[in-house]
Amino acid sequence: LCHIRGEIFHMSDTLNQALKQVQANILLSTTQAGTGHVTSSLSAAHIMTALFFTNFKFNQNDPHDLRNDRLIFSKGHASPLYFSLYRACGLITQDELMTFRKFGSRIEGHPSSAFPFCECLTGSLGQGVSIAVGEAIALKKQGSNARVYCLLGDSELAEGSCYEAFNSAVYNNLDNLIYIVDFNRLGQRGVTQLEHNTELLSKRLASFGLEVFKLENGNNLNECLNTLHYLEFSTSAKPKVIIAKTRKGYGVSFLDDQEGFHGKALNKEDCNKALKELGSVDMKAIFQTLQLEREELSKTNLPFKRQYPDDNKKTFQSFVWQSSLANLSTRQAYGAYLDSLVHKNPSLMVLDAEMSNSTYTDIVSKNHPANFLEMFIAEQNMISVATGLAKLRYVPFCSTFAAFLSRAYDQIRMAQYADCCLNIAGSHCGISIGPDGPSQMALEDIAMFRSLHNSWIFYPCDSVSTCKIIDLMAQRSFKEAGINYLRLTRDKGQDVYTNEQIFKVGGSNLLTQWQDITVLTAGITVFEALEVNKILPITVIDMYSIKPLDLDRLEEVSSKCKQVIVLEDHHQEGGLYEAIMATKKLQIPVYSMSVDKLPKSGSKEDVMRYCKIDKDGLLEMITRIY
Amino acid sequence: LCHIRGEIFHMSDTLNQALKQVQANILLSTTQAGTGHVTSSLSAAHIMTALFFTNFKFNQNDPHDLRNDRLIFSKGHASPLYFSLYRACGLITQDELMTFRKFGSRIEGHPSSAFPFCECLTGSLGQGVSIAVGEAIALKKQGSNARVYCLLGDSELAEGSCYEAFNSAVYNNLDNLIYIVDFNRLGQRGVTQLEHNTELLSKRLASFGLEVFKLENGNNLNECLNTLHYLEFSTSAKPKVIIAKTRKGYGVSFLDDQEGFHGKALNKEDCNKALKELGSVDMKAIFQTLQLEREELSKTNLPFKRQYPDDNKKTFQSFVWQSSLANLSTRQAYGAYLDSLVHKNPSLMVLDAEMSNSTYTDIVSKNHPANFLEMFIAEQNMISVATGLAKLRYVPFCSTFAAFLSRAYDQIRMAQYADCCLNIAGSHCGISIGPDGPSQMALEDIAMFRSLHNSWIFYPCDSVSTCKIIDLMAQRSFKEAGINYLRLTRDKGQDVYTNEQIFKVGGSNLLTQWQDITVLTAGITVFEALEVNKILPITVIDMYSIKPLDLDRLEEVSSKCKQVIVLEDHHQEGGLYEAIMATKKLQIPVYSMSVDKLPKSGSKEDVMRYCKIDKDGLLEMITRIY
Repeated sequence: LCHIRGEIFHMSDTLNQALKQVQANILLSTTQAGTGHVTSSLSAAHIMTALFFTNFKFNQNDPHDLRNDRLIFSKGHASPLYFSLYRACGLITQDELMTFRKFGSRIEGHPSSAFPFCECLTGSLGQGVSIAVGEAIALKKQGSNARVYCLLGDSELAEGSCYEAFNSAVYNNLDNLIYIVDFNRLGQRGVTQLEHNTELLSKRLASFGLEVFKLENGNNLNECLNTLHYLEFSTSAKPKVIIAKTRKGYGVSFLDDQEGFHGKALNKEDCNKALKELGSVDMKAIFQTLQLEREELSKTNLPFKRQYPDDNKKTFQSFVWQSSLANLSTRQAYGAYLDSLVHKNPSLMVLDAEMSNSTYTDIVSKNHPANFLEMFIAEQNMISVATGLAKLRYVPFCSTFAAFLSRAYDQIRMAQYADCCLNIAGSHCGISIGPDGPSQMALEDIAMFRSLHNSWIFYPCDSVSTCKIIDLMAQRSFKEAGINYLRLTRDKGQDVYTNEQIFKVGGSNLLTQWQDITVLTAGITVFEALEVNKILPITVIDMYSIKPLDLDRLEEVSSKCKQVIVLEDHHQEGGLYEAIMATKKLQIPVYSMSVDKLPKSGSKEDVMRYCKIDKDGLLEMITRIY
Repeated sequence: LCHIRGEIFHMSDTLNQALKQVQANILLSTTQAGTGHVTSSLSAAHIMTALFFTNFKFNQNDPHDLRNDRLIFSKGHASPLYFSLYRACGLITQDELMTFRKFGSRIEGHPSSAFPFCECLTGSLGQGVSIAVGEAIALKKQGSNARVYCLLGDSELAEGSCYEAFNSAVYNNLDNLIYIVDFNRLGQRGVTQLEHNTELLSKRLASFGLEVFKLENGNNLNECLNTLHYLEFSTSAKPKVIIAKTRKGYGVSFLDDQEGFHGKALNKEDCNKALKELGSVDMKAIFQTLQLEREELSKTNLPFKRQYPDDNKKTFQSFVWQSSLANLSTRQAYGAYLDSLVHKNPSLMVLDAEMSNSTYTDIVSKNHPANFLEMFIAEQNMISVATGLAKLRYVPFCSTFAAFLSRAYDQIRMAQYADCCLNIAGSHCGISIGPDGPSQMALEDIAMFRSLHNSWIFYPCDSVSTCKIIDLMAQRSFKEAGINYLRLTRDKGQDVYTNEQIFKVGGSNLLTQWQDITVLTAGITVFEALEVNKILPITVIDMYSIKPLDLDRLEEVSSKCKQVIVLEDHHQEGGLYEAIMATKKLQIPVYSMSVDKLPKSGSKEDVMRYCKIDKDGLLEMITRIY
């Protein structure tokens, strides 16, 4: 790639012009919007302009071209810089750039999927660092030589999830992943903990196994170009990081290295003062030259083997039921069934946070290692890596204990906005896990996932329903964006259903005759209700689809029964009872039975009895309301 | 402390006996329970026994003695080791130890507050590492010379939050904090990413600023004692870490360094085989000797200056309203009012995740730096540090953007079980923040906090209510355990109330005359409803206390009105509407107006109009149902 250096020297005047335009547009777009992060954009303007017009390659006509390098601004608040770069290469008009942060614009406050070349929404720091790992893995698996470039800030390095990502990048030998740290010394409210200690940061990042490139003056275009040039000669299998020592607000004298300007747009007067300092700026011509050169580059220098999992996109292969799946626990069924699905659907990727012998995804890791990613105990990174994979059209299934998914709630929350589909399984839910005690008991997970836009939640009680629901989740992944959550139980298995049973999104199953009292429940408590039914006839309905709910069924219950009990191994708030009450479909008395005290260690039976969500508790409630 | 070395040599036979007893009890307690983590306990038995009976000092008669060193098992699954140590010093009887993991026992699956010497529940990895930081800060602030010892695993080092904690420990110069890494090479399902690379791990931890002590054979009692001895000579202000290279299952030949035994108790036969390998074990005599020696130590070697914030415990000083607080935004009121409270209540600690110029806690940082902790952008660590502070009787108030509290949901979840009180403020909630876009918009925060046991949630609309509610939260902190959440808005302030208004936990305020249609709302949408009331008379009720709810008020609404609209800047699921519906108090039609589509960047007005939670949307709804 030596010719790039040739280009660089040839281009350096033009690049200087591009830089000036980018700097000017950072100022103009934010002042026009009256909001935005000027200084955080200016600090990284040099290195990112240099990168964007040299090493970074992409097909300007097709954001989905697999040969495209990917650009992720994990410090998403540098959006004025991000959009100014795409303005400079002609993909955004000057008029559109001036709609920055206006309602309905593609040029949002943080780069988002509204702009087609954006990989996904960032703005919650640290997450782009992990999404980049997912995309780099996906590109390698697809045989693309493309790279992922990810810009992050130094304040951002306080987020622990960054170090999860670095570990993961190194473990997966992602030599196609290049991080750029905009090391500008200042955070939102003052000096960062690292200050400007390049030496310490270098040692730290090297100790995670990254190949470190130090860029002592990140606000000098030639030094930036040199570092990017050296990068091309790296032959190590390590992911790389450029530590670019920069100054926040560089390029405008009264912003340069000053505190107190984070996230503030200049008023018109100050903006004009700043623009004057930049001198004359060519607002049009620059990109045209560069665009042409770039297209030449992309034609000649990208050997490429197409292996897009997209090929499976419309042909999801459902697995056929096998008797070996009968009477497995729901978590065993999860691993075993995924293993079969992966066999027929190579775009499925199974991720697990060092729990694969508990979630039974170790079956996949043994039989289909290429479709399994060991994520170690780093749940945040697991979810964002899955987002990265999904953005490049893999179908991720992530698993760990349901309780520990709370560790990644911010990442899951952000996945709402990523315009892709994630499948997430939480095993060992509820108090029924028993001896391990409260730290391992998920009692908030349904609330967590229900509160997300466009989420589906399933809570199967047996092996048959688990397998059939996984099918529903996988099918959605091939069609639309959304977050699918599967709640799994630790307890041993016992099939309620035969393979003929139909399961659907927004479905439920009547498990008994109709009686005056109906118990609406799901998962492990289905068995408690069925036990009670042996003593005292009640209607038991398996509400396996918690979101969306079976509204027709609720109307049916309302017309056929006199009283309803909602029984669940979850806190009341945000759980099945509240979901049902929100529908306003039940016109008869409804009672809630849920976990309403702090649980303890103990046997499953003891703990369920203590919290009164077992058969005895249910019987007591029925006797009371009868 | 040189005499300790003298003691060591004197004690080494006894220590050997203690170690044997600890090893035996790890086996016995787990086999008896039929569950538990044998191998993860055995690996750390040597270093922890050595520590427990030499450097570690505490008053066996009083877990609350401020002179006590603190012992945190962040790898909480090594609970068999933890409890066996306390067994060896006589604080647990042999009989009680055999109730491990039984329902009702103090000897729970993971060490928990049920056992009085336990700092707090662990079991979600990485969190003890941060709680230790909080306790070390608290001890220093209180003038105690005591230390915090924290055991963590190598698998655990995959959790990013560990690195947040290390940063925080170094930033706060916690030379009284000693981490011990049980570097046993094996995780739950196989080899860890670090394998046994002591060199790499040393470099990594040193690069965060920790003083590293390498212990090459952590399963050799003498080497353990030597390392602990050297530790005593450290004069640096750095937090310390011992990297103890160990073998999982060490001490039992068929478990030693073997995969496949994580979290598995031995059956009786294997247990007997293992015990035989240990040879003769004295199950009684050991601790008596050691206990005596320890008491001597604690009497002679702990200079101590008592400055317990406990002194404020029952005398919370509420602040008097000042006109300077009038018409502040709720977030401004938060900072300004806390500043006044801190002045009168020195046990208040204000923590902020590098957002203090947005949450206005920078006022506290300037005026009362001793009561302010800069936590940088590391929300997970912030919450667990707050837990540590609260365990040593400080009253923490944590703040950041509400959206980013989702980053710490696991830590907040675990705080339910920590038997202490946390105050958490989330600013910039909801879509009304506008231009920054969806990544910064908290739309799940009410659901998140509602679903916790014993949580309170407040959502004030103006400065007066914010200040008065902070009083309610602080008062609770001085009395009982719980999690208090305060939802704050970005928008400018406009007082609805005068200082005479009364606010209470589970209260609400009627802001208009009674009409047929009632709008139940809180926070920013109160103003939208009041605007509508100017055009079309409606009842507007400020439901500032979202949990607990004002049930009497709901009954009153039900009797006085014909229809109800619940209006909120939050997703419907888990929010105010569902909270209200769950009460079953409203016997009249109820309509929900909430954020039910993906928001975008834009002005506050544009985004609220788009999601139809503004006055126009409300007017449209009223016209429709009228």
